Amino acid sequence: MNAPDKLQQLLSLTRKPFPQSRKVHVPGTQDGVHVPMREIALTNGETVTVYDTSGPYTDPTAHINIRQGLKPVRSEWVAARGDTEAYTGRSRVALDDGGKHGPNGEDMADTRIEALRAEAAALQRTPLRAKPGGNVTQMHYARQGIVTPEMEFIAIRENGKREWMRAYLGDAEREARLKGNPLGARIPDIITPEFVRDEVARGRAVIPANINHPELEPMVIGRNFGVKINANIGNSAVTSSIEEEVEKLVWSIRWGGDTVMDLSTGKNIHTTRDWIVRNSPVPIGTVPIYQALEKVGGVAEDLSWAIFRDTLIEQAEQGVDYFTIHAGVRLAQIPMTAKRRTGIVSRGGSILAKWCITHHKENFLYTHFEEICEIMKAYDVSFSLGDGLRPGSAADANDEAQFAELRTLGELTRIAWQHDVQTMIEGPGHVPMHLIQANMEEQLKHCHEAPFYTLGPLTMDIAPGYDHIASAIGAAMIGWMGTAMLCYVTPKEHLGLPDRDDVKQGIIAYKIAAHAADIAKGHPGARARDDAMSKARFEFRWRDQFALGLDPQTAEAYHDETLPKDSSKEAHFCSMCGPKFCSMKITQDVRDYAANQGVSEGEALARGMAQKSAEFKATGGEFYVPLDALTTKKA
Amino acid sequence: MNAPDKLQQLLSLTRKPFPQSRKVHVPGTQDGVHVPMREIALTNGETVTVYDTSGPYTDPTAHINIRQGLKPVRSEWVAARGDTEAYTGRSRVALDDGGKHGPNGEDMADTRIEALRAEAAALQRTPLRAKPGGNVTQMHYARQGIVTPEMEFIAIRENGKREWMRAYLGDAEREARLKGNPLGARIPDIITPEFVRDEVARGRAVIPANINHPELEPMVIGRNFGVKINANIGNSAVTSSIEEEVEKLVWSIRWGGDTVMDLSTGKNIHTTRDWIVRNSPVPIGTVPIYQALEKVGGVAEDLSWAIFRDTLIEQAEQGVDYFTIHAGVRLAQIPMTAKRRTGIVSRGGSILAKWCITHHKENFLYTHFEEICEIMKAYDVSFSLGDGLRPGSAADANDEAQFAELRTLGELTRIAWQHDVQTMIEGPGHVPMHLIQANMEEQLKHCHEAPFYTLGPLTMDIAPGYDHIASAIGAAMIGWMGTAMLCYVTPKEHLGLPDRDDVKQGIIAYKIAAHAADIAKGHPGARARDDAMSKARFEFRWRDQFALGLDPQTAEAYHDETLPKDSSKEAHFCSMCGPKFCSMKITQDVRDYAANQGVSEGEALARGMAQKSAEFKATGGEFYVPLDALTTKKA
Repeated sequence: MNAPDKLQQLLSLTRKPFPQSRKVHVPGTQDGVHVPMREIALTNGETVTVYDTSGPYTDPTAHINIRQGLKPVRSEWVAARGDTEAYTGRSRVALDDGGKHGPNGEDMADTRIEALRAEAAALQRTPLRAKPGGNVTQMHYARQGIVTPEMEFIAIRENGKREWMRAYLGDAEREARLKGNPLGARIPDIITPEFVRDEVARGRAVIPANINHPELEPMVIGRNFGVKINANIGNSAVTSSIEEEVEKLVWSIRWGGDTVMDLSTGKNIHTTRDWIVRNSPVPIGTVPIYQALEKVGGVAEDLSWAIFRDTLIEQAEQGVDYFTIHAGVRLAQIPMTAKRRTGIVSRGGSILAKWCITHHKENFLYTHFEEICEIMKAYDVSFSLGDGLRPGSAADANDEAQFAELRTLGELTRIAWQHDVQTMIEGPGHVPMHLIQANMEEQLKHCHEAPFYTLGPLTMDIAPGYDHIASAIGAAMIGWMGTAMLCYVTPKEHLGLPDRDDVKQGIIAYKIAAHAADIAKGHPGARARDDAMSKARFEFRWRDQFALGLDPQTAEAYHDETLPKDSSKEAHFCSMCGPKFCSMKITQDVRDYAANQGVSEGEALARGMAQKSAEFKATGGEFYVPLDALTTKKA
Repeated sequence: MNAPDKLQQLLSLTRKPFPQSRKVHVPGTQDGVHVPMREIALTNGETVTVYDTSGPYTDPTAHINIRQGLKPVRSEWVAARGDTEAYTGRSRVALDDGGKHGPNGEDMADTRIEALRAEAAALQRTPLRAKPGGNVTQMHYARQGIVTPEMEFIAIRENGKREWMRAYLGDAEREARLKGNPLGARIPDIITPEFVRDEVARGRAVIPANINHPELEPMVIGRNFGVKINANIGNSAVTSSIEEEVEKLVWSIRWGGDTVMDLSTGKNIHTTRDWIVRNSPVPIGTVPIYQALEKVGGVAEDLSWAIFRDTLIEQAEQGVDYFTIHAGVRLAQIPMTAKRRTGIVSRGGSILAKWCITHHKENFLYTHFEEICEIMKAYDVSFSLGDGLRPGSAADANDEAQFAELRTLGELTRIAWQHDVQTMIEGPGHVPMHLIQANMEEQLKHCHEAPFYTLGPLTMDIAPGYDHIASAIGAAMIGWMGTAMLCYVTPKEHLGLPDRDDVKQGIIAYKIAAHAADIAKGHPGARARDDAMSKARFEFRWRDQFALGLDPQTAEAYHDETLPKDSSKEAHFCSMCGPKFCSMKITQDVRDYAANQGVSEGEALARGMAQKSAEFKATGGEFYVPLDALTTKKA
């Protein structure tokens, strides 16, 4: 990488590692399996290892050139299976980047845009597909008993440093008391590659991993694994540079996005997608009907199977890992939405409803479903079966239309599985708390335990500006109950397009929901990071508290607002209670006192502490650091 | 009020009404019962009436002079009962405002501070107390079958415009589908004054209403009423002005604080409290041990019953409505905390633990509990029995210490009830989702359905900077399960002192949690505002969406970021999907089309729409407003 190039990146891509953190790689037994994790070095000498979605962007030793794309870590695995072939691929046409039929005419002659496209074209790889009659899905391999490198990678990744976690959590009484309630999930103590294979074979887990996305660090979506989250990004109104679009991705995975959906519409969506997929270590999902609609100038009724099919192949060749397909919106179900408070709110759902009604024909995605399966299995694109009739308000939750579609999605799941195509099911939307469980139960029942991938759900409707919170409540609950992946909601939901900070707010809210769910389910080791945090709190290791948090920078900035000095980061009190009221300090003092007596606190008490009170009082002075120490105390 | 005075207030107190809103008062049958509500006028001619905690501050017609305090709406009710007497009251001493024994010496001679105190002294009323041997608690009246004006006020307030709500919600299928799951709550269709009385008599509800706080607009805390929230405020490090301290209160109730706890420490806490209580339309709670500790120079072991008792009377005379009393921290339970990850984290709990251990004596609040009851019933101060041994981390949740204290709180509840003293129980803290239900069940069982008042609970520990979200998840769940009031948590929890925006963020997160709980419980009418919001969404009434939200200003600002023009507030699309993709618009178009045929959408479909497709297509043009209409479309 030349110097100006590097400078440009430093200016535009967020590459700073998290504080006290370094990237480590845990090797597997299969070639090329090196699983990245983030290791946090605490100031007391302990290390805590956490799941890391951020890819090489947080590794300062990684050389990244977004004009070349990330290192294709999976290429050799795909090649070694010997079941794919490279081919010329579909020719890129002007229409792929939209605008030809758009209201504002064609701008393909714009030289600046042409330059951007040239950059994207340079990134595009020669596509691979299954050899004729072949099937390259992870499910297909799993069902033949094959443990792929992807599966081993995932097993190591899901385990994390499980042994450390167990030793850290330790205490038997505590573990018995905090034992999770898995509500039907069966999470083993140790995730083995064979377990990953079995779950994928059974259809209970999905590994979104297009053979044309070799840059991917494999991950799994399933209720017997950690709960995942998805973040959505879209292209800029005016595509400005590859850096800007890639930075959206980098930013999303930095804060914890496990997958990213590219929901771009309008112009340059093919170009943008090249940039994103080539630089993404996480699975990329799309809703192909959006691009197909662009190709027909936004006129839903002009959509056709031919155009849609061509779009699927276009995106599969680019390396998209999962497609939202609204094949469950059936003509007969559309009238069920007529009495709703908010009708059809899924974009894809409404586009297809419009098409169905206009032509008075069955949804062409439903009638061509097996043909879609053929495409999916040639590239290993996973289905995310869209819930086009999801409720758009609490008033419409769990209604006839929603559940009718869910049953259709269950039928389609069976068909996809006959083709060994990996499948997950999208879910609502807007659901009051007391109706969430029914959603999960209906999904498990009708969709045969295929992973559930829900948007929220929002538990209420009156919080515009705060829907990330209104929905994080529902997300945490449905995550506990069995949802495998939570699609984030930002504070701008229902109001406008999220900016950089909104994306971060949405992701953090959803990391909270997913983590709360993991703890409730009793995911082994999930609590270890919390325990390390609690210990750091009790021991006044402020910097460790920041480092262990989901957003170290914000935590430190908040602490700085009241106690900005560096010395405060070592202080044995905080600004909330001040030195006089610090309850944690009092507790520690009590323990120290007991320890000085060479006995446990309980025993010290039992021996009768009345006669000790004078001595205890004598040590009391140090509990109460004068207030001005807030600014003068040194480490 | 003179002109400079008014100007000063306008500069410092937030008095602006909410958009499209006006204050209305619903009269009761008893003298002086005029219940304030907020009426939102929608642009379609409908009005929505919502519960209003903001007091006269959002009423532009109200004359407010914070140096005189609010209008004493309850004075005549208290007087009419004829069971109280005015008396000289305890003399204010310098120590009440702290500092005498403080580390930095005494500053009582400071003339500026003296001037502030003089302002506060001017506010202080002549205290009232029960006539000798009397009892002036709402519970005492309730148990004699008396429906007080406070109870009638509350019944009207809790009902809101129930008839309107029912008519609005309307649809029978929808109501059957969305029927709440009350999990043991028994919320009647209409709240009558007699129901309020019965709940208070039974101890299942608390009306915090000190006879020395006549400015109060009565409210109720109980699981068969709407879930309430509390916000905490504290004095400024350097008390600057009455306006600044009162504004904290006004700001908290503006966004929905149902009660406010004044957790001031250090100097000038008596003065600050005068300012707050005299200007508060909501109940004020305190933790008297904080002030008592100030009086003994911060040395916990120097605390005594005499000093504590004097502090209770001081605060009762000022009009504090409920006291957090950590009488449940017993000597024998303290060793149970030794093995905890985070020991004792309650400030009050640690102060008392320190006292108990130092003296090796039983907690003096426990041994003097009946004497405390005598004070409470002379003023009608309600107990909020503190959970001094609440867990400070997920690791310590639901442990032996926590539940041992809970059982003690149950015993104390019975004693308080023998004195007809109103009582609620404070709860955790830090509890993973799957352990929340056990907390609620243990509380109901051991505390005989006395209202539960919980802090959060936080469902995890790794979200510093976002603990309002981590805890809103737990708060919504425990609210659904039966908690009557939720104590808010701000984004600064564990990190620093909340500023103005943090307070707002905490309150909004908790309004969301409380509202989600009301909906899940099936609180009659709770969903009406959501339904009105959903209808406004579907009909693109943007201004109504803002007005119906919990924070209209933020919602509108977010909308403005993408579509700033006034004309966009009338646009039949939004920036998320743009005009091409608007699913709500497509749904409406489908319905309009069906309506034009003079049939329902379902019937139109049933008649076979294939032959209509040509006509339908012809109308399609208008669905797709050109993109530049985003900036040029007029209302």
